[in-house]
Amino acid sequence: MAKIKVAIIGASGYTGVELMRILAGHPEVELTAVTSRQYVGQPVAELFPSLRDVVELKFMDNQVAEIASLADLVFTALPHKAAIEVVAELHRAGKKVVDLSADYRFSEQKLYEKWYQPHTAPELLAEAVYGLPELFRDQIPSARVVGNPGCYPTSVILPLAPILSLGLVDPEATIVIDAKSGTSGAGRSLNLGSLYCEVNENFKPYKVANHRHQPEMMEQLGRASGVVPKLLFVPHLLPINRGILSSIYLPLSRDVTAAEIEGALAGAYADETFVRLLPSGSLPTLNAVRGSNYCDIGYVLAPEQRSLILFSAIDNLVKGAAGAAIQNMNLMLGLPEEMGLLTVALVP
Amino acid sequence: MAKIKVAIIGASGYTGVELMRILAGHPEVELTAVTSRQYVGQPVAELFPSLRDVVELKFMDNQVAEIASLADLVFTALPHKAAIEVVAELHRAGKKVVDLSADYRFSEQKLYEKWYQPHTAPELLAEAVYGLPELFRDQIPSARVVGNPGCYPTSVILPLAPILSLGLVDPEATIVIDAKSGTSGAGRSLNLGSLYCEVNENFKPYKVANHRHQPEMMEQLGRASGVVPKLLFVPHLLPINRGILSSIYLPLSRDVTAAEIEGALAGAYADETFVRLLPSGSLPTLNAVRGSNYCDIGYVLAPEQRSLILFSAIDNLVKGAAGAAIQNMNLMLGLPEEMGLLTVALVP
Amino acid sequence: MAKIKVAIIGASGYTGVELMRILAGHPEVELTAVTSRQYVGQPVAELFPSLRDVVELKFMDNQVAEIASLADLVFTALPHKAAIEVVAELHRAGKKVVDLSADYRFSEQKLYEKWYQPHTAPELLAEAVYGLPELFRDQIPSARVVGNPGCYPTSVILPLAPILSLGLVDPEATIVIDAKSGTSGAGRSLNLGSLYCEVNENFKPYKVANHRHQPEMMEQLGRASGVVPKLLFVPHLLPINRGILSSIYLPLSRDVTAAEIEGALAGAYADETFVRLLPSGSLPTLNAVRGSNYCDIGYVLAPEQRSLILFSAIDNLVKGAAGAAIQNMNLMLGLPEEMGLLTVALVP
Amino acid sequence: MAKIKVAIIGASGYTGVELMRILAGHPEVELTAVTSRQYVGQPVAELFPSLRDVVELKFMDNQVAEIASLADLVFTALPHKAAIEVVAELHRAGKKVVDLSADYRFSEQKLYEKWYQPHTAPELLAEAVYGLPELFRDQIPSARVVGNPGCYPTSVILPLAPILSLGLVDPEATIVIDAKSGTSGAGRSLNLGSLYCEVNENFKPYKVANHRHQPEMMEQLGRASGVVPKLLFVPHLLPINRGILSSIYLPLSRDVTAAEIEGALAGAYADETFVRLLPSGSLPTLNAVRGSNYCDIGYVLAPEQRSLILFSAIDNLVKGAAGAAIQNMNLMLGLPEEMGLLTVALVP
Repeated sequence: MAKIKVAIIGASGYTGVELMRILAGHPEVELTAVTSRQYVGQPVAELFPSLRDVVELKFMDNQVAEIASLADLVFTALPHKAAIEVVAELHRAGKKVVDLSADYRFSEQKLYEKWYQPHTAPELLAEAVYGLPELFRDQIPSARVVGNPGCYPTSVILPLAPILSLGLVDPEATIVIDAKSGTSGAGRSLNLGSLYCEVNENFKPYKVANHRHQPEMMEQLGRASGVVPKLLFVPHLLPINRGILSSIYLPLSRDVTAAEIEGALAGAYADETFVRLLPSGSLPTLNAVRGSNYCDIGYVLAPEQRSLILFSAIDNLVKGAAGAAIQNMNLMLGLPEEMGLLTVALVP
Repeated sequence: MAKIKVAIIGASGYTGVELMRILAGHPEVELTAVTSRQYVGQPVAELFPSLRDVVELKFMDNQVAEIASLADLVFTALPHKAAIEVVAELHRAGKKVVDLSADYRFSEQKLYEKWYQPHTAPELLAEAVYGLPELFRDQIPSARVVGNPGCYPTSVILPLAPILSLGLVDPEATIVIDAKSGTSGAGRSLNLGSLYCEVNENFKPYKVANHRHQPEMMEQLGRASGVVPKLLFVPHLLPINRGILSSIYLPLSRDVTAAEIEGALAGAYADETFVRLLPSGSLPTLNAVRGSNYCDIGYVLAPEQRSLILFSAIDNLVKGAAGAAIQNMNLMLGLPEEMGLLTVALVP
Repeated sequence: MAKIKVAIIGASGYTGVELMRILAGHPEVELTAVTSRQYVGQPVAELFPSLRDVVELKFMDNQVAEIASLADLVFTALPHKAAIEVVAELHRAGKKVVDLSADYRFSEQKLYEKWYQPHTAPELLAEAVYGLPELFRDQIPSARVVGNPGCYPTSVILPLAPILSLGLVDPEATIVIDAKSGTSGAGRSLNLGSLYCEVNENFKPYKVANHRHQPEMMEQLGRASGVVPKLLFVPHLLPINRGILSSIYLPLSRDVTAAEIEGALAGAYADETFVRLLPSGSLPTLNAVRGSNYCDIGYVLAPEQRSLILFSAIDNLVKGAAGAAIQNMNLMLGLPEEMGLLTVALVP
Repeated sequence: MAKIKVAIIGASGYTGVELMRILAGHPEVELTAVTSRQYVGQPVAELFPSLRDVVELKFMDNQVAEIASLADLVFTALPHKAAIEVVAELHRAGKKVVDLSADYRFSEQKLYEKWYQPHTAPELLAEAVYGLPELFRDQIPSARVVGNPGCYPTSVILPLAPILSLGLVDPEATIVIDAKSGTSGAGRSLNLGSLYCEVNENFKPYKVANHRHQPEMMEQLGRASGVVPKLLFVPHLLPINRGILSSIYLPLSRDVTAAEIEGALAGAYADETFVRLLPSGSLPTLNAVRGSNYCDIGYVLAPEQRSLILFSAIDNLVKGAAGAAIQNMNLMLGLPEEMGLLTVALVP
């Protein structure tokens, strides 16, 4: 049977190479085109020698019309703002799109525009679907544009959404999210802060209470749980390539048992392939998910401090980006959701 | 002029080699003996080639009487419990002692015994002084036994103490401390979790809300500020050799200005050599303190979340252990407090 | 169709978890038993959380008879010496075995015994086949015991064998092999030199001209090329988890062209899936093979120094151990050789 | 007594911050000016927070006349070519200069011009002295321009020079130098290959047999030993911040004893503070020199391969750059050579 044709626009970054890595092992789709303004004409294997003998393509220019003629579904891995029009053009050409930028993640246009810039395709924004299958699966198969979730939001929304519904936290109380991300989250562009010697043997907070992923989390948690929580989101930069570990601190307004917490999480995720609920006493660790599409979730109750602490671990490039995008692609193409995504983490 | 003689009992761990490194550059003291049960008779330079041509000693057995005859002041870098009697014996021999274990850090015997084990030298515990000069300097010069602070407590008490005195936090509210430590904090003993391949490219929480440094912080913050805060302390393991970054989240019970925060910190530390208050907009970063005795402190106000976030960075082996111990030694010996401790962090 | 049953004896090390990782993605075999003396009765997922929901087994004791009853082919991942009898017993029970120790790698018993210890199953040693398919493929399908190659030897034999046949090097001249390995090569046992703080930010040579992989290389290169070369093998320890890069320096006894080198390499490997010959000007890099079964080979001619330099890169746990073992398993079971092994390297 | 005034032109790179770090601990000199075109007007402590409260200067523009008025000796840490005229102008202004570029390292103008570009101040090149005190100490005190050695050359010349004089190697035979450097050697400029995710968990060769440090080594070894050796120099990039380990392979033309090797090394370096000769059986390791000005040297004799292997370890930013520059400065200013340079390596 002929494979389904897919393409990637903006394929020279870390999300691009990760999409290519995973698609190379997917039995039902064929990668027919990849683009990169910077590397037009260059063989993919020259830029990414890991893909030698695997991806035989050359980078093409970002010509949307040409790409549209070569694929049924397109991944757009462009910077935000740049994606708005490219996605819209692909949509007009009748293509399905999974957009990995922030441009189609927000339900509320004003919220997007407050944190980013004016949105020039607001109707399409309204039509686009937030691609977190574990919470919004029913909307994805029929979607024509999916906004793929941010990496931090995935790591926060998955553990937090079922717990919020328990009504444990006073809506006025602040939920602290202390998140730590590997450096691939900063992308492959040249800036001083991403140099090896600046990151290695170092660790630091950044964009404290001021990161664009915070409103995304709040909006989607509001959709999932019915109430928009008050979050204090503080990201930190880890000297590792991949992985996000989020430590989420909930001040409790009432007593709660471990069974209640576990029940809420199991109620939401017991049947989910890509969410693993750790048994009591186990806590997430980044190397258990490196290179895999899993989100591992654990928790600790601290009754003396009247607090619940949730921990989650994902690979920011897989469940936090390319893996989730392919999970969405599978749903949009009517394929088994986990197809091509069952690889196990690389340990050590 | 003859130098003052000092010795180290338990010198084969990372704290031991760090004490030797710093003492090698100290102009007024002379290291006359180092002990290690495991390496008796072995030249220090064989175990620690960084010290070749610098420390010409061999490891001796832990014979307290002999050590006492060789030094005026002794650093004890033994595991907790093992230190109790060794310190007591040194004290009986008339020696000054800086103890780097937890055995002489607590003011309240019962608190120590709740988290560790029975204390067999309670009178000496009562006499011992908590060696955090920035807050308790006046007690140190005359002390005969100094309990050197834990690494995490130093990173938490220094930023938090002056702020607690402002009365910003409801005593019933929980202050979240999300701390991240380099792996040297786990010591040089053999356990699976300290293997390179287990730590590298990994990150994880441990001893969540259950670390022995939490009661130490609470007791000393109570002494320093007059009220024992309710802390939720969650440590994490960083894939780096050195450094602790603590992110401290305070839920505010009243409005506060940046000027008030800065005033409180400056009031406490403006004249302190080893506490650096970062200007507004700057946040601590571990490589700025690596190998140095500084504690860098920064903060962010998040009015929407009615929260204050304090950040601190120290080198766990210097300001968190050996550097602080030598700072205490200087005070106990009547030397300038910063002598031998002004080295700058190694960057990159 | 029923899957073929396989088991792993000695599965709690890094080679064990890597075998499990790869087998989890293999469509035609089923892992039915894993053993570990140290962790008998413990679920695999507790020790290796990366395998949660993937491998549902518990570690069994190393009871060979019981394992033999549960599997058609067994991987033995025991320390050398310990493997001799276990493999022999499995062989007597009619099982096929891929042994990942050194115990069945040598053709010549005396050579084995010079570098290891007396071999107690010499007839089986004589029968066993060296499992490097690219050079000795024809012997593997019918083999009942395969000695899986050492990690360093794989990285050296593959690039060097076809070149030796060119007769470029005077047999009396020394070929220098400066090899660098990631730390997983040292295994998961507890020793001081494997602690994170000892390896991180460090680099050093070890076992200079005295590593047991040197005679293995020499013997197999002799078999492959007809002449035993004089090697000077110097391994170094890299502060990374995975990967071996070998730099091989050949003093030339005659002039040679790039075309001749490329011809020799292509003659040997043009049809090999897992050997990638890099185009002129490209050199191997470890991250291009991390997590994959590829061996990347590049070269530089230095005419002024009358030298040829060969470079190879492999993942020591995949092509250097578990991947090669599964490649051998596929051949022994009549499955397509590359089945389950086509995953792409994890970049970054 | 007034301190001697020194300045740094081009102080915003890793060599610049390292000069500042070491000078901060020097008792007899005062840093009066630092320049950086890119950061003019910015406080040093903003760019390098490790220097907060230590260096209170702001970066000035590279105005040579102004700098000359502020200092008696100037370090120039500019890219090669850019340094030629700046050094010449400082020289005309009567200043002593330690140049850390390659522009004043070569004795032979043509050799420089073959590997770099035309030299526009050839008379000054002829006057300049190669600043490797252990071999050319007598020329440095009276020098007005010192060309500070390259990092790789220092790591190679020190171990190799005394051995070459033994006449062990046929002049036609090739000496292989397999060198491995930490990433700070690539500087602080923005290029893809220096990004954290490109270097971390990676390792690779580069500029094989084509690195500009090779002719520098050959020329200086020729000066030191009387015969220019045939070198094959192959550098590799290590995923660490600091350190160069060079493995040097000498094919022997005659038998040699360990005593002869040790005698040659001791004859050259027994009285040198910054060269440590390791006892037989010990080999250099990078963490033993990190942050220090030492060069550690070890060796192995491999009689079967008729080879001698020399190993050296330095910190590329200290003995390989800033430390050596300050050693030269001390000699040029009539200060004790080791002043300010006796700090011990940071371990772990």
